[in-house]
Amino acid sequence: MQAFLITFCISAMDLECASQETVKQGLLARGWPPIKGFSKHVKTKVLEFFSHLIKLGQDDPRRVVHSLKAGLALTLVSLFYYYQPLYKSFGVSAMWAVITVVVVFEFSVGATLGKGVNRGLATLLAGGLAVGAHQLANLSGRIGEPIVLGFFVFLQAAVSTFVRFCPQIKARYDYGLLIFILTFSLISISGFRDDEVLELVHKRLLTVLIGGSTCVIISVLLFPVWAGQDLHNLIASNMEKLGIFLEGFGDEYFKMPEDGDSKEDRPFLQGYKSVLDSKTNEDALANFARWEPRHGRFQFRHPWKQYLKIGALTRKCAYRIESLNGHLYADIQAKREIRSKIQETCTKMGMESGKALKELSMAIKTMVQPFAADIHIENSKSSVMNLDTLLKSGLWDDETDLLEVVPVATVASLLIDVVTCTAEIAESVNELAKMLKFEVVEPTVSPEKPETGQLKIGIS
Amino acid sequence: MQAFLITFCISAMDLECASQETVKQGLLARGWPPIKGFSKHVKTKVLEFFSHLIKLGQDDPRRVVHSLKAGLALTLVSLFYYYQPLYKSFGVSAMWAVITVVVVFEFSVGATLGKGVNRGLATLLAGGLAVGAHQLANLSGRIGEPIVLGFFVFLQAAVSTFVRFCPQIKARYDYGLLIFILTFSLISISGFRDDEVLELVHKRLLTVLIGGSTCVIISVLLFPVWAGQDLHNLIASNMEKLGIFLEGFGDEYFKMPEDGDSKEDRPFLQGYKSVLDSKTNEDALANFARWEPRHGRFQFRHPWKQYLKIGALTRKCAYRIESLNGHLYADIQAKREIRSKIQETCTKMGMESGKALKELSMAIKTMVQPFAADIHIENSKSSVMNLDTLLKSGLWDDETDLLEVVPVATVASLLIDVVTCTAEIAESVNELAKMLKFEVVEPTVSPEKPETGQLKIGIS
Repeated sequence: MQAFLITFCISAMDLECASQETVKQGLLARGWPPIKGFSKHVKTKVLEFFSHLIKLGQDDPRRVVHSLKAGLALTLVSLFYYYQPLYKSFGVSAMWAVITVVVVFEFSVGATLGKGVNRGLATLLAGGLAVGAHQLANLSGRIGEPIVLGFFVFLQAAVSTFVRFCPQIKARYDYGLLIFILTFSLISISGFRDDEVLELVHKRLLTVLIGGSTCVIISVLLFPVWAGQDLHNLIASNMEKLGIFLEGFGDEYFKMPEDGDSKEDRPFLQGYKSVLDSKTNEDALANFARWEPRHGRFQFRHPWKQYLKIGALTRKCAYRIESLNGHLYADIQAKREIRSKIQETCTKMGMESGKALKELSMAIKTMVQPFAADIHIENSKSSVMNLDTLLKSGLWDDETDLLEVVPVATVASLLIDVVTCTAEIAESVNELAKMLKFEVVEPTVSPEKPETGQLKIGIS
Repeated sequence: MQAFLITFCISAMDLECASQETVKQGLLARGWPPIKGFSKHVKTKVLEFFSHLIKLGQDDPRRVVHSLKAGLALTLVSLFYYYQPLYKSFGVSAMWAVITVVVVFEFSVGATLGKGVNRGLATLLAGGLAVGAHQLANLSGRIGEPIVLGFFVFLQAAVSTFVRFCPQIKARYDYGLLIFILTFSLISISGFRDDEVLELVHKRLLTVLIGGSTCVIISVLLFPVWAGQDLHNLIASNMEKLGIFLEGFGDEYFKMPEDGDSKEDRPFLQGYKSVLDSKTNEDALANFARWEPRHGRFQFRHPWKQYLKIGALTRKCAYRIESLNGHLYADIQAKREIRSKIQETCTKMGMESGKALKELSMAIKTMVQPFAADIHIENSKSSVMNLDTLLKSGLWDDETDLLEVVPVATVASLLIDVVTCTAEIAESVNELAKMLKFEVVEPTVSPEKPETGQLKIGIS
């Protein structure tokens, strides 16, 4: 049986993953290929598909666990059919428990809870209204009834569909509105053929509740995946990615071509790219996290908005880094002497901002006060001041032309922007630390003193 | 009836939209408020909600049309219940036509078709497999049957759920896999209580096909919304937004504070911000567009990938513009004489890139060859050359310190980056023009000559 599924998936993968070349050599272009070639092609695709699946599981083993949990939940609710006393009470209505499990069971607890609550409330509300609509339609006689029912169904479907366009509602209640339309239509229409509408609503609601509860219980009790925790980790790891880039940037930028090693061979410098497009993912996780109850270090009304604020600032910083990255691979026109004059200060600016971001990331991960980050930020700021002094002192002789100064000046200026962004990020992480009362941990090794000689906690 | 719905929506809006202040003054904080105050609060919220809805309709009237179409589709399939001969053939299976319409009917033709095809194929495949599973389970006797069925349900749910994590499959076949799990489970489990499994599958498939076809027909025939057209317009309008920023940038940046008007009062300069986060939307539209048949100027296998490529380059340009925007509002430290020396060239670079982007946007919108854009790009490139010459010639006297040059040099350098990005965008628009054989239109007014004196078509 699974063979069919695999064939389906392979054909899907084939459509998507096949390179242009494969497509050109594809079935249609070559006419019907010899069976040997075809079976080889299928074999390669099957192997590719399986190795892809194995990698998906290795990247995040929670995916495997989730799949098993989904299978378990579905097998549990199918007891409604197998176990005679249960089937006697619910009959075919048991179907709704199965449907509920299939559509409500999601990867994270938040998403499952959100969909479950949406489905439960929408079924209750729509069921109630549908009973009302049925009663009203009943008053209009056998011929008038379908007209009145049709009018109600049309009206509620049109209004609810339109309300779904409202972004704030779409973010949290889209699924609820869909189920509202579905339940209202089904129950009010069924009422035309079956007068036991109240019983229908009662059974539907009960089975939906049972299906939803099964999902929520399995989701919470068996290896729960918390969207809040995921958001927390995502925000921290995004910051870390920027930190890694900044720490490595100075050395890479100021390295002379004769120092060997192509700069293109630095995958660790490209990690920040995923931060550029992280908004959708962060928004979705925050929406799910809002449904989650207290768990571990996260409360029910955890300040998820503050996480989104930090995420937005991190992205702002990533945009600057994207500009910096462009300069990394540009032909460096500045003369060695000009570059070497500001090399130390610029490398230090990058290094200190990078360290600050990594410390902030670590502070979020471990939920301790980011004191160490403050020191690095002070250091990066004093590097900016040093650069100012250096630039004021006059770096060049009369023969230096400005054209050679421009690329280095740009990199310096972008680094100054990055320092500003980092300070903004630190400020909002400090706000978060205040809100959540992050732990105060004395550093085990004596902290580096900021280079201005005085330790200023708090970002100006 | 709609009153309930509205109350539900208001409470939803209330939760989401209420400002911090309103929350502080909310019900809980004040205890039970006087009824007068409460009703006033509700009234304000209702009015706010309605004005929000009216704005949603005004922004895109297709939303109103879509809602009416959804209502119509649902009313049509409810005929299965009202019309005796139809109900006689399908009975309660008619329910699946209603469910299909509710979940398949989407805003664009592509999304509706994609979901419809997914649902139809998945129902067919899962139905077939479920019949097989039912036959196999039948062989294992009354006690063994639920165990075998349970095993099959668990296995297919776990495998299919895991396959849904595969990004390429998720993008196009996620809904199909969901329906596969649903249909397989429902039909194989129902088989335990109802031996007419084949008839069940037959009816289910037929009603799903009828529901799906109703959606597709209404979606295509009544004021169709094409995802392809939307993607086409989105790519063009994103480019235009960047163009508007660049055209205005020079004047804004070089304006002296004493020239009056705060720079912050320039909403037209902030339009580009939406481009930064456009990736998810573009990807979704491209996925939907792939399902759409030939319509207007779009073929079935339209090069949507090229649109995504142009979109990615436009975003890259937007990241540079985000850095530029930071400098717009920074305190300008450079002296008037330094700035005025490069003002003309920089303004020209921005202006010409902006015009090029607007021309490219117009070329995509009207599907004509972007000849005019090529001229502007040549102009912007020659401005870069002029700037080089200007910088080489030595702009400053011995007393000028580099600190005053840095901000202006950065802006100049970012503008050079923008010129490069614009040239890349133009190149990929030219590729698109070649693929789609854009019309060649003689300009009605004589085109500006590029300032290098020779017209170079094609981007170096």
